[in-house]
Amino acid sequence: MAATVVGGGSLLLAWQLKDKRVLIVGGGDVASGRIESVLAADALITIISPDEGLHPLTRRYIKSSERITYHDRVFAGLGDLVAVDMVLTAVDDVEKSREICDMCRALRIPVNVADIPPSCDFYFGSQIRDGPLQIMISTNGQSPKLANIIRKKIELSLPFNAGEAIKKVGELRTRLKERAPGVGGDVGRRRMRWMVDVCTSWEIDDLALLDDEKIRKLLDDGWENNRVPKMEDVGGKRAQTAISTRWMNGALVLPVLGFLAGGACMAFVLLRPRP
Amino acid sequence: MAATVVGGGSLLLAWQLKDKRVLIVGGGDVASGRIESVLAADALITIISPDEGLHPLTRRYIKSSERITYHDRVFAGLGDLVAVDMVLTAVDDVEKSREICDMCRALRIPVNVADIPPSCDFYFGSQIRDGPLQIMISTNGQSPKLANIIRKKIELSLPFNAGEAIKKVGELRTRLKERAPGVGGDVGRRRMRWMVDVCTSWEIDDLALLDDEKIRKLLDDGWENNRVPKMEDVGGKRAQTAISTRWMNGALVLPVLGFLAGGACMAFVLLRPRP
Repeated sequence: MAATVVGGGSLLLAWQLKDKRVLIVGGGDVASGRIESVLAADALITIISPDEGLHPLTRRYIKSSERITYHDRVFAGLGDLVAVDMVLTAVDDVEKSREICDMCRALRIPVNVADIPPSCDFYFGSQIRDGPLQIMISTNGQSPKLANIIRKKIELSLPFNAGEAIKKVGELRTRLKERAPGVGGDVGRRRMRWMVDVCTSWEIDDLALLDDEKIRKLLDDGWENNRVPKMEDVGGKRAQTAISTRWMNGALVLPVLGFLAGGACMAFVLLRPRP
Repeated sequence: MAATVVGGGSLLLAWQLKDKRVLIVGGGDVASGRIESVLAADALITIISPDEGLHPLTRRYIKSSERITYHDRVFAGLGDLVAVDMVLTAVDDVEKSREICDMCRALRIPVNVADIPPSCDFYFGSQIRDGPLQIMISTNGQSPKLANIIRKKIELSLPFNAGEAIKKVGELRTRLKERAPGVGGDVGRRRMRWMVDVCTSWEIDDLALLDDEKIRKLLDDGWENNRVPKMEDVGGKRAQTAISTRWMNGALVLPVLGFLAGGACMAFVLLRPRP
């Protein structure tokens, strides 16, 4: 295996913002998208923007979220950056934006200035969200529109219950850690192996159907005996949705329609009345 | 439209590391994966780890990359954090890891401690890379294995030429900015609209076939006349690959096989010799 890596990319990250303070300078169209992303990560948000520049969606976020503090004015300088963990600016004033960026860098506050890549410590990408599942598509600034088109293609190809399955597997993992605690070491490795076995043996649609009772049985019969029981063994019925998902994804429906159409055509050819 | 957002997620980011200094503490299995991700983002890397703890892949990276500085020792304290822009630790010593994390936070250096979520400013996810296209799948720490399984499903559903198409659209965008320069404002909006029109009118496989000459014609005939010429109008032949990609993706091949099989079965039923 060669140890060569193609450069030119970014480091994709899932940044943790729970109860961190994010300052958003600007309140227009772009800012409203930023607010949504940052709220989804449970941040505390301060928005600084003159009222007349607010997008209707920004207005609605300000009204409906208790996590947002709003100041009806322009950015006032260093004082606005006290105790701030991240800064996102989306204003038309290029000079002002660069100034804010410089202040943030001096204070080591991660910053993104919309539309000015050199003033960004990080970029955003097209995103998909399904509960605990988050997917980002980045084109490294080359084509936001293609990122969007690819996002739609990916959305269509995802298993319907992916988010739910991840949630249930997270619960299983938490319960397993209570039963067999400890960080790292042998027990950590055994836990990881068993979780991997469960995830590879069960279909995503079946994992999504796990409940308290099935999780308990899975741990009693499976973990304790170092094996992975089948869905049926823990009192579950194989998910009907396992079939329906694949139908909806077109993996089965088109071949079956093709089969029927082929049969019909051949019957028509062979059975048609001849002169 | 309601302005409610489901929390509990992360903020997915494409972090910029070009020529930034990343310290990696540890050299084992996990560290070698980190090295790969960080090299892909053109960072300058310092690895601190006793030689006996190095994974073979880490050894190869150290030998083959000029961007890596290696120290055969354990982490020595604050002095190791001077001028560092990001810290990733992957060592078995939980106490030491937490100590490093505390130092980083005091210095406002973004930090990730493998396997100890509360000591992470950010998490990693499963990744796909195709040139300028990067995709991250995060389950917010709930199930790395399911992230992996979903990554494989997404890989299969991606258009073959996505990375190449993005590269070419990036070139088109750069050439357009040279022809019609300026940040924001009316020209910025017109540029953005035209680029969106190109991306939505052309197939991804056709975009991937853009070259210098076709880009020039696209700008001359298209941008200057405020329209989007067809592939044929700029001297291109519709990509053969447009068909082959869809075949390979199974969107056509299975229905066609189904059609043939259906016809064959019906022929067999109708034409079989009867007693």
